[in-house]
Amino acid sequence: MRELEERIRREGIVENGDVLKVDAFLNHQMDVGLFAAMGKEWARLFAGEGVNKVLTIEASGIGIACIAAQEFGVPVVFAKKSRTKNIAGDVYKVEVPSFTHGGVSTVIVSKRFLLPTDRLLLIDDFLANGAALEGLIALAEQAGAVVVGAGIAVEKAFQPGGERIRQKGVRVESLARIRSMEAGRIEFC
Amino acid sequence: MRELEERIRREGIVENGDVLKVDAFLNHQMDVGLFAAMGKEWARLFAGEGVNKVLTIEASGIGIACIAAQEFGVPVVFAKKSRTKNIAGDVYKVEVPSFTHGGVSTVIVSKRFLLPTDRLLLIDDFLANGAALEGLIALAEQAGAVVVGAGIAVEKAFQPGGERIRQKGVRVESLARIRSMEAGRIEFC
Repeated sequence: MRELEERIRREGIVENGDVLKVDAFLNHQMDVGLFAAMGKEWARLFAGEGVNKVLTIEASGIGIACIAAQEFGVPVVFAKKSRTKNIAGDVYKVEVPSFTHGGVSTVIVSKRFLLPTDRLLLIDDFLANGAALEGLIALAEQAGAVVVGAGIAVEKAFQPGGERIRQKGVRVESLARIRSMEAGRIEFC
Repeated sequence: MRELEERIRREGIVENGDVLKVDAFLNHQMDVGLFAAMGKEWARLFAGEGVNKVLTIEASGIGIACIAAQEFGVPVVFAKKSRTKNIAGDVYKVEVPSFTHGGVSTVIVSKRFLLPTDRLLLIDDFLANGAALEGLIALAEQAGAVVVGAGIAVEKAFQPGGERIRQKGVRVESLARIRSMEAGRIEFC
């Protein structure tokens, strides 16, 4: 998606070789006009797929997911991260390693909000090693829900997550796919 | 706001006397159509105030804030919670106690995204003891930004936060104000 690629080129900052900061418009300060354009693109790509719910993970997926969900006219559920292993109540849960913060989070969703009848669109801001997205897929599987596909804002295609998840048969639509960031220069696929 | 009150009456669950669960439509599963109606109401209430940015706090404020911000045509910044006291980089920060989870979070915003020229609308899902909202006000003060006011979805008016923050001169517009929840029965102001 050209609008997102141009924005990354203009305002993205490469740090330590493989960290891409897009916090000026995507995941700290958030350009909701850009999010609406992204939502429209996913609505076009997943038209006719019967998406009835968007599933995302806190925190930086939530804003993108909510605005995208408006385009589909469906509710959003966000999976919650917890450092506690003892989670009370009737939840689906999965362990997700964090590459940004280190350690492992237990990620949970209330069983009331993921149903076997659901046709889910998964939304997240980044796809790199794929841990968060695989966590969402695991939660959907526990619920017996159908994963229609995943809408990702920025995929670091030189990391293995996207390839591995597509090989499982999950449709992944990333609006910007980065091939390399060598010497701080961002190249798209 | 009648639509929100009716929804709370129909789907809100009172637990342990003073906990109100609205996770079916507000802060776990999220009804983005309801959020758009809430955003329109805040846009009406704060019309002409020159709001140029929405400031919220992760995680459950983010969805509401993003959809409300569309009505104002402005970006959103969300303050991030961290359990780490050693935060790297150029950030404003404040300590915020958590009544839900216990303990204290360090809440941060990058200095790049809060400016002395900003006229901020603060958005959050709940106002009870006021700790989170006071944290956002403190971050705005550090930046020298103007707080135009706060848009809250659900205020527990029987807890002291709203009263204390209004006494400081901050305009607080809560779309549903709960006077009492005795015996599980929700009464609005």
